[in-house]
Amino acid sequence: MANITRRSAVLLALLAPFATRAGSTKTMKPQSEMPAMGHDLSQLPADMSKVHWMGDEQIAMLVYPGMTVMDLIGPHCMFGSLMGAKIHLVAKSLDPVTSDAGVTIVPDATFNTCPRDLTVLFTPGGTDGTLAAATDAQTLAFMADRGSRAKYVTSVCSGSLILGAAGLLKGYKATSHWSCRDALSGFGAIPIDARVVRDRNRITGAGVTAGLDFGLTMVAELRDPTYAQCSQLMSEYDPKPPFNAGSMKTAPANVKTAMVQFASAFTKNARALAAAAQG
Amino acid sequence: MANITRRSAVLLALLAPFATRAGSTKTMKPQSEMPAMGHDLSQLPADMSKVHWMGDEQIAMLVYPGMTVMDLIGPHCMFGSLMGAKIHLVAKSLDPVTSDAGVTIVPDATFNTCPRDLTVLFTPGGTDGTLAAATDAQTLAFMADRGSRAKYVTSVCSGSLILGAAGLLKGYKATSHWSCRDALSGFGAIPIDARVVRDRNRITGAGVTAGLDFGLTMVAELRDPTYAQCSQLMSEYDPKPPFNAGSMKTAPANVKTAMVQFASAFTKNARALAAAAQG
Repeated sequence: MANITRRSAVLLALLAPFATRAGSTKTMKPQSEMPAMGHDLSQLPADMSKVHWMGDEQIAMLVYPGMTVMDLIGPHCMFGSLMGAKIHLVAKSLDPVTSDAGVTIVPDATFNTCPRDLTVLFTPGGTDGTLAAATDAQTLAFMADRGSRAKYVTSVCSGSLILGAAGLLKGYKATSHWSCRDALSGFGAIPIDARVVRDRNRITGAGVTAGLDFGLTMVAELRDPTYAQCSQLMSEYDPKPPFNAGSMKTAPANVKTAMVQFASAFTKNARALAAAAQG
Repeated sequence: MANITRRSAVLLALLAPFATRAGSTKTMKPQSEMPAMGHDLSQLPADMSKVHWMGDEQIAMLVYPGMTVMDLIGPHCMFGSLMGAKIHLVAKSLDPVTSDAGVTIVPDATFNTCPRDLTVLFTPGGTDGTLAAATDAQTLAFMADRGSRAKYVTSVCSGSLILGAAGLLKGYKATSHWSCRDALSGFGAIPIDARVVRDRNRITGAGVTAGLDFGLTMVAELRDPTYAQCSQLMSEYDPKPPFNAGSMKTAPANVKTAMVQFASAFTKNARALAAAAQG
């Protein structure tokens, strides 16, 4: 791209996930053919010059069969806006992994090839697939190892069951999906009913869609609040749910009763998993 | 699963995306080995008996290189909670497709194998990848064909540029990502600044994360409001963004100026695409 300075290249990357990335060139035109998308940083408002535009975070996101893909993609949307960061979708092997609702994703790293030193270790949740991952020796060994050195140890939804099973939440406040949050105490964690919970370097999000609030919180933590506001505007994250039933505090009684019933077997299995981890 | 009646099987599916699905058996245990997760519908609160629990929607979601995967997965999360519905991830071929931020997804249908008669036709957005899809003859032919018969024609983010380019928005109100909403008028559409816009059977969402609000709106439309509240509670969609910069109305001036600048080449390209479609 003629006349694109490094600073303009930095601007190009800020548009990710709103722009193409070097990692996807196998399905995209070569960068030399892409229309120029950046402008000189010198043309930004003066008070934007101190924003922490560039970084070099190494972010590993666990993927596994039966995960809930929205748990992964909300945070990935926000992590993906971090210029200079590298995101690894890590699984036991490079075989495609199918989510609980049928979306098949191709991992790009394995437990062996994933960098040893991470800025962020993250895991999504799910139901049966999460219980399986939380009882898989290789997965737990990977999580415990990377989690022992990662700057941040994180999860969304029932992914905190995996963190707990890997021994990463002993004595830490954490949250999870409402259906299995209480089970966390079986892992020595302190369940907190909040959308995003931070205790030292453990940052956990509540169920599924909480991944967006978690993700923006992480962007502000890794860069700064202004960067997070830029990511929020790019992803037009100005939510307006058409109903007000998204939590156990707000949902109508009949909806709560029905969904607690539907989730009851998972709730029981999560509790049993955590209880088996004690002692 | 012994003693699981069809009605209980229906309950099992409501947990999707919060439960495993028949479509993903290749990576999951056979259903006969899965722990029982349902309860008799007769044990639900009486006022839940009229909920439209079962359906048979055929939902086709376009996937293409360089798409923004959050545009896809927010809606997929909500569509995935529809018991009995079938979702097809449709692409030009079955080759894996990489999103703008590097997530690789495997399609499960092609333009040829996608059912001809759909309940919902949907497309996500992106930037360069969306412009490429919106100028691809096969993609446009597919969209125009299925869109001519689909019960609902829908998009999130700049995906409405693809609908427009396929001739599906002439005279229709529609929205898009803030950076290219005005360009819609080049396709004969009437740009509306709202998070979810409905005009007859065209239902479009604003940028990226608006897919969740769009998705819940669709669940209520396809089933009923109570079903949508159940999906909202299951996905714990009770958003609490840590900042208030998610729209052009709320973001601070310096953030808006910077992001408008970063998006300016895409804005210009989208306008040129739509202008070329006129006449």
